[in-house]
Order: sequence, then C-alpha cells, then structure tokens
Amino acid sequence: MYKIPIFLIYLIFCAGALGEGMMLQRPSADSSGPGFTPLVVVELASDTKEEAIAWLLSRIRDQQHNGGAELLVEQLGPGVEGQEKENPNMFVVGASWQRLLSGAEDVGLFKEFSDGSMRGFTCANKHNFKDFKGDGDDFLSMAECQYIIKHELDTLRAKDETHVPGYTQVKLYPGKSIIRRLQSKGILIQFFPLHEKEELKRLSFSWYKKMKLSFQPLDDIRHYYGEGQALYFGFLEYFTIALVPMALIGVPYYLFDWEDYDKYVVFAVFNLIWCTVILELWKRCSASLAYSWGTLSRKKAFEEPRPGFHGVLGFNPVTGREEPLYPNAKRQLRIYLVSLPFVLLCLYLSLYVMMIYFQMEGWALSVYDEEPTFWTGILLFIPSIIYAVVIEIMNLIYRYAAEFLTEWENHRLESSYQNHLVLKVLVFNFFNCFASLFYIAFVMQDMVLLRQSLATLLITSQILNQFMEAFLPYWLQRRRNKKMIHKVRKRRTLEDKELPLAEQVRLEAEMSTYLVGAHRTCTLIQFHDREVQFIQYMRQMSIRSPFVCVYRSICLSGLSLSQGTFDDYLELFLLFGYVSLFSCVYPLAAVLVVLNNVTEVYSDAFKMCHVFKRPFSDPAANIGVWQLAFEAMSVIAVVTNFALIGMSPQVKAYFPESETQLILWTVAIEHGLLAFKFILTFLIPDVPKHIQIKLAHLEFESLEALKKKKMLEASELTKMVQ
Amino acid sequence: MYKIPIFLIYLIFCAGALGEGMMLQRPSADSSGPGFTPLVVVELASDTKEEAIAWLLSRIRDQQHNGGAELLVEQLGPGVEGQEKENPNMFVVGASWQRLLSGAEDVGLFKEFSDGSMRGFTCANKHNFKDFKGDGDDFLSMAECQYIIKHELDTLRAKDETHVPGYTQVKLYPGKSIIRRLQSKGILIQFFPLHEKEELKRLSFSWYKKMKLSFQPLDDIRHYYGEGQALYFGFLEYFTIALVPMALIGVPYYLFDWEDYDKYVVFAVFNLIWCTVILELWKRCSASLAYSWGTLSRKKAFEEPRPGFHGVLGFNPVTGREEPLYPNAKRQLRIYLVSLPFVLLCLYLSLYVMMIYFQMEGWALSVYDEEPTFWTGILLFIPSIIYAVVIEIMNLIYRYAAEFLTEWENHRLESSYQNHLVLKVLVFNFFNCFASLFYIAFVMQDMVLLRQSLATLLITSQILNQFMEAFLPYWLQRRRNKKMIHKVRKRRTLEDKELPLAEQVRLEAEMSTYLVGAHRTCTLIQFHDREVQFIQYMRQMSIRSPFVCVYRSICLSGLSLSQGTFDDYLELFLLFGYVSLFSCVYPLAAVLVVLNNVTEVYSDAFKMCHVFKRPFSDPAANIGVWQLAFEAMSVIAVVTNFALIGMSPQVKAYFPESETQLILWTVAIEHGLLAFKFILTFLIPDVPKHIQIKLAHLEFESLEALKKKKMLEASELTKMVQ
Repeated sequence: MYKIPIFLIYLIFCAGALGEGMMLQRPSADSSGPGFTPLVVVELASDTKEEAIAWLLSRIRDQQHNGGAELLVEQLGPGVEGQEKENPNMFVVGASWQRLLSGAEDVGLFKEFSDGSMRGFTCANKHNFKDFKGDGDDFLSMAECQYIIKHELDTLRAKDETHVPGYTQVKLYPGKSIIRRLQSKGILIQFFPLHEKEELKRLSFSWYKKMKLSFQPLDDIRHYYGEGQALYFGFLEYFTIALVPMALIGVPYYLFDWEDYDKYVVFAVFNLIWCTVILELWKRCSASLAYSWGTLSRKKAFEEPRPGFHGVLGFNPVTGREEPLYPNAKRQLRIYLVSLPFVLLCLYLSLYVMMIYFQMEGWALSVYDEEPTFWTGILLFIPSIIYAVVIEIMNLIYRYAAEFLTEWENHRLESSYQNHLVLKVLVFNFFNCFASLFYIAFVMQDMVLLRQSLATLLITSQILNQFMEAFLPYWLQRRRNKKMIHKVRKRRTLEDKELPLAEQVRLEAEMSTYLVGAHRTCTLIQFHDREVQFIQYMRQMSIRSPFVCVYRSICLSGLSLSQGTFDDYLELFLLFGYVSLFSCVYPLAAVLVVLNNVTEVYSDAFKMCHVFKRPFSDPAANIGVWQLAFEAMSVIAVVTNFALIGMSPQVKAYFPESETQLILWTVAIEHGLLAFKFILTFLIPDVPKHIQIKLAHLEFESLEALKKKKMLEASELTKMVQ
Repeated sequence: MYKIPIFLIYLIFCAGALGEGMMLQRPSADSSGPGFTPLVVVELASDTKEEAIAWLLSRIRDQQHNGGAELLVEQLGPGVEGQEKENPNMFVVGASWQRLLSGAEDVGLFKEFSDGSMRGFTCANKHNFKDFKGDGDDFLSMAECQYIIKHELDTLRAKDETHVPGYTQVKLYPGKSIIRRLQSKGILIQFFPLHEKEELKRLSFSWYKKMKLSFQPLDDIRHYYGEGQALYFGFLEYFTIALVPMALIGVPYYLFDWEDYDKYVVFAVFNLIWCTVILELWKRCSASLAYSWGTLSRKKAFEEPRPGFHGVLGFNPVTGREEPLYPNAKRQLRIYLVSLPFVLLCLYLSLYVMMIYFQMEGWALSVYDEEPTFWTGILLFIPSIIYAVVIEIMNLIYRYAAEFLTEWENHRLESSYQNHLVLKVLVFNFFNCFASLFYIAFVMQDMVLLRQSLATLLITSQILNQFMEAFLPYWLQRRRNKKMIHKVRKRRTLEDKELPLAEQVRLEAEMSTYLVGAHRTCTLIQFHDREVQFIQYMRQMSIRSPFVCVYRSICLSGLSLSQGTFDDYLELFLLFGYVSLFSCVYPLAAVLVVLNNVTEVYSDAFKMCHVFKRPFSDPAANIGVWQLAFEAMSVIAVVTNFALIGMSPQVKAYFPESETQLILWTVAIEHGLLAFKFILTFLIPDVPKHIQIKLAHLEFESLEALKKKKMLEASELTKMVQ
C-alpha cells in the first residue's frame, strides 16, 4: 500500500533538501569592524547602565593575574536600521593568538603530538605538536578559539564586588560567575560564536551538496562545530549503516507477507542481538573518534566546573586549583530524596491521568450508546480535549521542574548536568510516547492496528521532519536575510554582495539558537496523546482508512520542530524504539528508519549550516546518557518482543493444551536472550585495543615522569641540605 | 530438630580450633647457614647434572646488565638423615637490601609517600617514602622481599642458550623463562618462601589465639602473606558480617514455623536486594583495602608478563620494555573457537550423562518392580555406580583440559590466566554442584526435602570442613615435625629447641603446598552426584530419617579438602549459593552460614599458619573473577527464588482461577526486581569518592609532570639548536 509513495516522497524530499540555499555572509574585518578577528558576540540589554557596561568591559580586558579574562572586546558599530530600532549594546570579542594558545592550555585541549600520540597542549612545548607551524595562528580551529573564549568568559568570576555596578539588586560574591549572574538577571541577553563564511561554504559542499553517497566529513564537522556535533552526525551515520542489515532481512518478510511467527521469532532474535552488537560497537567507534579528536583523554575530574556551579570557594583536591566546592553527599541527597521521588510521582500522575481519561472515555461512550444524539456525540470528544489540556500543562510543568531540580542539584560538570537533565526528561517522554503503542499492543492486542500505527508514524514523521525542521525555518530566515540585504542596499551600494560586519552580526543574532543539551523538552507528548484519543475514537467508529494517516500526519507536526542536540537524539531514540520494540510485528520498520535517516542526515546538515546560530563547540568524549538510553531501550525491546511473540495466535497454536507451557517457554527463552545480551555487552571491550594501548602508554609515561620529577625534587632537597 | 546440636557442635569445634598448636621453627642464620637471610628455597631434582646446577647458580648470581638476577644463593648443608636419603640439591636464595629495593622498583611496588598518597617506589626517591628509615632494611616486609625474589627468578630469561647445559633435550630460546622450563621438565622440583618464626607467632596470636571476637588483623595478614590472602580473609570477614542481618531476620521465620508465603516473598525480596547491596559495597571495601596496600594503583598494563607467557620477543607498546609479545586476536580466537565450545560441550555432556543416568534408574526401578528379587535389588545400585565412575572420569579429564586450554590460550598476565581458569572450572562445578538441589526443587518439587538437604549440607560441611581442612593435615604435619626433632636430638643436643636451618628447610619442603589460584579443581562433583543418587534411592524407599544425614556427612568429606585460594573461595561461593538461591525455602541458611564462617575464619587461619608451606604473596587488587561469580549467582538467585515462590501452593491459592495470571505476575515482579538490581549496581560507585579523588590526583600530577618533562625536553632541544 505504502511501498511506492514512500520512495517517491523520499526522492522528492531528497532533491529538495539538496537545493541550493543562500549562504550566510561571514563577518570580515572590513574598515567598519574591529582591529581583530571577531569570534564571539555578546549582546547586552539595550537599557543596560553605562557603569555596568564599563565594568564588564574592563573585567573582560583586564590582565589575567588581576582576575580578568585578558580578551579583546569592541562595541559593534550601528547598523543600517539606525540607532532607535536596534540594540546598541552589541559587542564582539576576540583575542590575540598568544592569549588563545594559553587559553587552550587552560581548558586542557588535547592535540596530536609529533610522535602521533594525543597530549595535553602546553604553550612552552607548542613546537612539538604536529600541526604547530610558525606562530601557530592556524593551530587552533575557529571552533576551538570560540570555545576558549566562551570558557574564559564563563570563568570570569567576581572578586570582591558585592554587586554589579549600577545594579545594587544584582548581588555578587567571590567566585560567582559574572556572565551567569548577568544572564540570569536579563542584563546579558545572549552570547554566541560567529559563522565563518568561507569555511561554511567548504563544509556544506563536502557535507551535503554533492549528490553522491559518501561518508560524512566528520573531521570537517568537528573542525567547524566541535566534537559534540560531530559525534551526533557520526552516530546518525553509524546508526543508519548499522540498520541496513536489519532492513535487508526485513524486506522479504514484508513483501511476501510472511505471517509465520516461527520466522518472526528468528527475525526478532536476530534483531535483538544485532541491536546489542551495534550499540557495543558504537562505543568502540565513538572512543576511536574521541581519541583522535583528543576528547577521550580529557579527564572529567580535571575539567573546570560549569558556570552555574556554586559553592564555598576552596581548593579542588584533585587539581589543587581554587574553585567552588560542593559536598557530593548533599547532591546525592537532593537527587535521591527530592528529584527521584518527584520524577516517580510525575510518572505515576501521568499514568493516573491516563487511566482517568480511559474511564471518562468509557463513560462518554456508554452515554452515547444509550442515547446517540448530537450532543452526546460531542460529549465523546470532551474527555480527549480535557486530557490533552491536562497533559499539555503537566508536560510544561514537568519541563520547568526538571530544569529547576537539575540546576538545584548543583552538578559540578556541564556533562553531568546535561546527563541528569536528559535522563529526567527522557524517562517522562519515553513513558508518554510509547504509551499509545503499548496500549495498542498489549491492551487492545490489535497487531494490524499496531503495524499501521508504526507505518504511519515512520512515514509521516519522515516527511514532516524534513519540512518542519529545515525548510520552514530556512524560509523564514531567508526572508529576514533578504530584507536585511535590501535595506543595506537602499543605503549603500554593495558591490561584493557581502554584508558589513554590523549587519551580519545582527542578522545572526536573530537566528534561532541551536541548543546543545536538553534545555528544551519536545512536545512529543501532545502528539502521542492525541494519537491515543484518535485510535480510541477510530476504534469506536470502526474506521481504518488512509484518512487516519492524514490526520496523524498533522498531529505529528508538533513532534518535529527539533531545536537542539536533545531533540535530534530524541528523534533517533524514538526511531530506534519503533524498530527494536516492535520488530517482530513490523519488519519493514528498519527500512523506513534507514530511509528516514538518510534524509535526516541532509536536513540536519542543512539546518546546522543555514537555520541556526552557530553553536559553541562542546568537547564531548561520547554521546553521554544517550548510550545508556539506547541500551535500556534494547533491554526493554527483548521483553516487549517476547511478550508480543507469546501473544501471537500462531505461537499459541503450538501449545494448544496449556497456556502455562507457552508462557514458561517464552519466559525461558527471553531470560536466555537477556543473559546472552549481558554477556555480549560484557565481552566486547568498550575501547579498541590499539587505543587502550595508547591511553595506557600515556599513563605509563606520566607515572614515569612523575617518578622522575619526585626524584629531581629529592636530589635538589639533598643538595640544599648539604 | 537441629537447633541445639548445631550450637553444641559449633562450640566444641571452636574451642578445638583455638587449641595451642606447636610452632614451626624458623630458619635462623646460625653458623651452619648461609651468610645472608635466606628468603626462598629452590629445590632441584637430586639427580640434576652438575653443569646445569653451576649454570643456573651463575645465572642467578650474575649481574643484572648481563641478564642475571643478581641474587645471593647458597647450597643447603646436609641434614641429619645423611647424604644417601635426602636431596642434596636444596638452595636458599636471598639478596642484599640494595638489590631488594631496586627489585621493588622493578616490580612496581606502591608505597605510602610522605604526603600520605600511594606512589610507585623508586630507589632514587626512597627517602621520601613514609616508612623508609636509615638504610631501609625494615622498609620491605619479608613477604614483599620473597615476592621480589620470586619475580626476579621468574623473569630470568634465556639469552643465547639453545638448551640447558647438560640437557640437550631441554630446549631454550631467547626470552623463555628459565625457571618455567626447568619446572616443566622436572629439573626444578619446587621453589617456595620460608616461614619466619617470630612474625608467625605474633601473627597467629593476634589472628586466632585470643578468644574475644574482633576484626581480622588484615594488615598483619597482608604483611605476612601478601594482598591476595589478606583480601580473602577480608572478604570472608565482610561476607560473614554482611550475612548477619539476613540471619537475624531468618531466625523468627524458622523458630515460629511461618509457612506463610507472603512473608517469604518479603523475606526473599529483602535477601535479593541485600545480596546486591553487599556485593556492591564489597567492591568499595576491597578498593579501599587495595588502595591502602598499594595494589589498586598498580596498573595491569604495566605489569610484567607471567613466566608461562611465550611469544616473539619485542617491545611492549605501553612500557617500551623488551618482553615476549603475543597477538590478542589470536588469543581471542583460541578462547572463542576452542575453549568456549569445549566448555559448552562438556556442560552438555554432563547434562546428557545425567539424563542417561535418570533413564537407567527408571529402567532399573521398573525391572525391580516387576520382579523384586535380590539380584534386581542389586541392579538398582548399578546405574548409580556407573554414573559415579563416569562423572569421576569426566571431572578428571575436564580439570586437565581446562588447565591445558588456559595455558594454551597464553595469557600475558597471571591474573587473567587465573581468571580464565577459575571461570572454566567454576562453571562446570556450579553446574554439577547445584544440579541435585535444582532437581529436588524444580523436578521433584519437594520443598521439605529441599529444606532438609540444605540443612544437612550446611551442618555437615561445617563440621567436616574443620576436621578435614585443618586437623587432619595438622596432625600429619605434627607427626612429621616431632619425628624430625627426635632424629636431630639423637645426633646432637638441642638446647634451644630450635631446629637448625637445614632441617627446618627440609621440614617445610615437605609441607603441603597452598595453591594461590585454581591449579586444583575440587571433587565436589562426586559428592553432589552421590547425593542425587541417594535422594533418588531414599525416595524410592520412602525413607526420610536422621540416618540420611549421617550418610551424607560421609559423602561430604570428599568436598572439604581445601588446598588453595580456589577451594577457599569456592566454599564461600557455594555457601552463598545455598543462602541466596533457596532463601525463600530455608530462611535458617544464613544463620548456619554465619556460624560456619566464624569457625572457618579460625580454621583457615590455623591452616595457613601451621599446615601449609608459606605461599608467595600475590599482589591482588580485588578478588578477581570471584566478584563476577558472586554477582552472577545473585542474578540467578532472583530467577530461582521467584520460580520457587511461583510454585508454592500458598501463592497459587491467590490465583485459584488462572495459573497464567500467577505466572505473569511472578514474571513481572521478577523483571522489576532484576531491573532494580541492575540500577542499584549501576548507581553505587565501585570506588569510594575519597579514593577516586586520590587516584585522580595522582593521575593529574602525573600528567602535569609529563607536560613539564616534555617542556624541559623542548627547551633543551632549543638550547642545543642554538
């Protein structure tokens, strides 16, 4: 039924995604610009007091030994729209090469050494690094420079100021991050890195403009967007390729309508083992990538605390650096005594609300059955509406509560903050997203409807994703872009078609922000709940027509507006869920997911280049809590699949005399498979051998160096005594 | 029924175990002894050729830069029995303090530094270590010295010799461990460390001679026997204390005969969670101990290969040292393509044999039923006899095959060799040991018999363990000891009652060897199979009398002869299995295990001090594969317990209408508990925070030192260029 249209739609959208997009113009150091390469833009509120601005700028420019950041900063000249309409408090920040190199040492960047190993960069030793040539002005990528500047701004901490000058109510205390306080009080609106036109052009060409299928240019992506983004695209590509075998095996099942559950069992077992294997191999893959990018060796314990982290100033017991300290026990108490019960309560509430909804539905249906008039017909819709509203409100509250709680837990590292936030939001979303499918599968036990639902979900999400994620925002952005060019043209003559820096910065400032991490929870829940209502309704009406698909497609649109890594990963996670949880019911799922991912690669790439502000690079060593989420999903998948197989009439036919036997067998095989999964996970090493050796070698060398150092110290001490 | 006798027997045995044992006499440097403190004894075959002895001694004495071990070695003088009866080729090995200190650096000993952290010992830096005073002749414990000498002897590798002088058939090649080759060819009979009388006296006093209950003197044990032994006793103590809550909760269940399965469910769930928690906490405990003993920071990758490891000589990619190399992929292939299928085949065979046995039993029984004569009555026993013989043979073959295969897998590290061997033997033993209990529980479904079996097993094993493990070997040894003293007295007058060194060494050489690791598989299987036969038989005869216990006690004696760490751990592992696997059937198990362990501590301590040769210390950082085995057991326990609960008539009564409902609920709760277990395991960090910080600090310091070192190198390079 769907076979032909999918491919058609797919091709059309592929072609669309590849269409030429207008390039964003890059800030160049023209006459009106500052005397340095602008890297990062800082936007303050337009009504910020002069003394606060002066104080902030002086702190940014101040020498490091005075507690400043020692960066270059200049106010942006007025744009074309005139002083009255635009914000005058836009600043571009840059730094000298020397400062950036010393910053690279501060943030603990790992670079390739002349002997091929990865080592922590040090200025004194810079000439021994592989790519360090001349003064080293090509050594750091722009993304790295921007990351360094972000780090320096973030770690600009209050000294003895009690409040921000001009704002007595904006309190400061020694060690508090200035930027964070200004941001939380609304004085600092945003700060973001600038795009780089030439690089972006080159990147987008190698990334998605050539038609031929090739691997993602991960190193280029990493060079431009940083490790976090590159790992996402690496994972997306890996995941797509890894699903191909499952897709290939699934096709004959679908084409020849093998309803034979024996064969489905084989297929499901293969799928489940395959899922485990690909997830384990991804860890190795990711470790290889992270090693070559130098983020694998960066140790969490040595990282500086994230800006939002607060506590009593003290000395870090590991590094000996002065930084805020916060007792771990207190954080654990907050997590286990407050956050965990809260999440469980919310899950319970959401389940409870769902149950009430089902009851109301039943009641409305019974009323309608008794007296089928127009008004009782309308009554049928009322539970759905109430439910949708309640869930929407709950979702909103949950989202803010999760953010608040995770902030309150006061994690020292950005990564652990992100992981805890993602985990909270993910659990809630998973619970709500798959509720409808679980309902169809286990309560309604309607496999045909389940298959239909999966097909619809996968096909519509594919189409609408491309549209809502990339095209719509892109068109909006292009309109803004054109308007700006038009305005500039009205005032000046633009020969080279390039926007001056001031306009370019303002244009980029208005682009949507691509959020690294989970600062926004998606609204999937709305869609899925509408789905449940709809299925309920359709069931009552006994309608199962292609019309269903259309309605759902519209519902789905709520799902697709992805605005950051969280949403991108969540999408993959849900797709993985569809493939693995119900693989024994709908073998074509893998095919659809592969097709979806192929277009996803292009649309995501396009989106990154043309729709969003450039994000700060994120030196990630792995995909964090998502690995865990995918693994948990693959475990749940084993249970679900065997439950589905056990429920199927074909399998039931094997045990005509005793249902107990059937269940016991199913449970036994399921336990066996689970055990096998865990053994497999245990046996496949997470880091490839050659990288383990390199890491061990670095550690060995370090310990030897430490021994030597202590020896030197000892011999010097002896000399002094003599 | 058993309540009073247990305690009585227990008290009697406790008192017995504490009885004064005659001290072993320590070698003292008297006039007939060598001019150095003898540490290790090397015994060569009495017919060893002179040239081989001369060559070996010269290699041991040779300078290190010539490839020698640079140790002191002397031939032991003749004993009292005269030249003709005793072996003249006994050598005592020692070393100068300087050599021992440089050896400590070679083996990578971690010691407490002056700032309280643990650091790798270096000679140049020796004065900065905490306990280093004067020349440092008290710095290393005797166990450490002996370990160093063992290491130096083990790593004495062939240079350009093609064979051992005098033995053209004993081939050597560059890099082959000389000691290992001599041992495998029977030229070297054994080498073992000597006891130290004064220390042993002090240790045994603080360990088991004082009556009052106190914690084990783990640091003293570690000082005398090394980390591996100390960890075993630490684990034994921890395990015993951890079981106390389970024992306390179990007592009322037993005393008041609560047959209520609701309560049993609560008890079982508590037990299962408690097992997980104690195993996780043990990891932390063990990490703390290992850190304070300096073995936690010793990295596997930096360890030198074990003597039996062979391969092409090359450079270790991590440490850069010259040593044999062997490709990991080849080892993996051997493990997965040969060893794993072999183990599975053996398990299958053992199952198959068991099935045949049951069939034969059934056949014999039917013949007897048809025609109950004397001859058919004898026929009843024939299947059991055949089965026992077959199993005995299989066990023997398996044991040798496992050792051969693990040797053939060619593991680089002693620890990984041990882990693979233990795992192989353990799986087979587990399979065979618990088969009878599983048979009673799930095939016979006879809970009363199961309870009785557990009680018998636990009580008899306790009594017989003490007897067979400690007293019997001790009496044998004492007889030998007295005989020797008697002989010496006949020739000379012994004023101080101390044996001269030569006699002492010969006496110790004849003591049993305490095997560190799994070089001997126990014969448990025999016992357990006899148990199955017996239960079958008793069932046929409908006999269930106290007589059963007596018969079993005799069978059990085969189980108890523990000769090394493997057997000691295996005993604990089986006890843990009895407690956790069937906790919902026999709540008193924990009480019996606690009592057993209390006496076990004493008898093991006694055995270590007086029955066995002193073992070489084993710098273990954890209990290795046993941790995994205990964890696997606790997972299996969840499944078993829920199966037992699901089978109980009381629980069945809750679901009178539908067995399916019962099973589904049981499975659901079991899955929930398994998930909870895994989450718990994941959440509890394996290493306590303060040790994590110390480790991270060491790593940070090391990396900083490496940076500095590279900087210095760079600046020197710059100077040289200028």
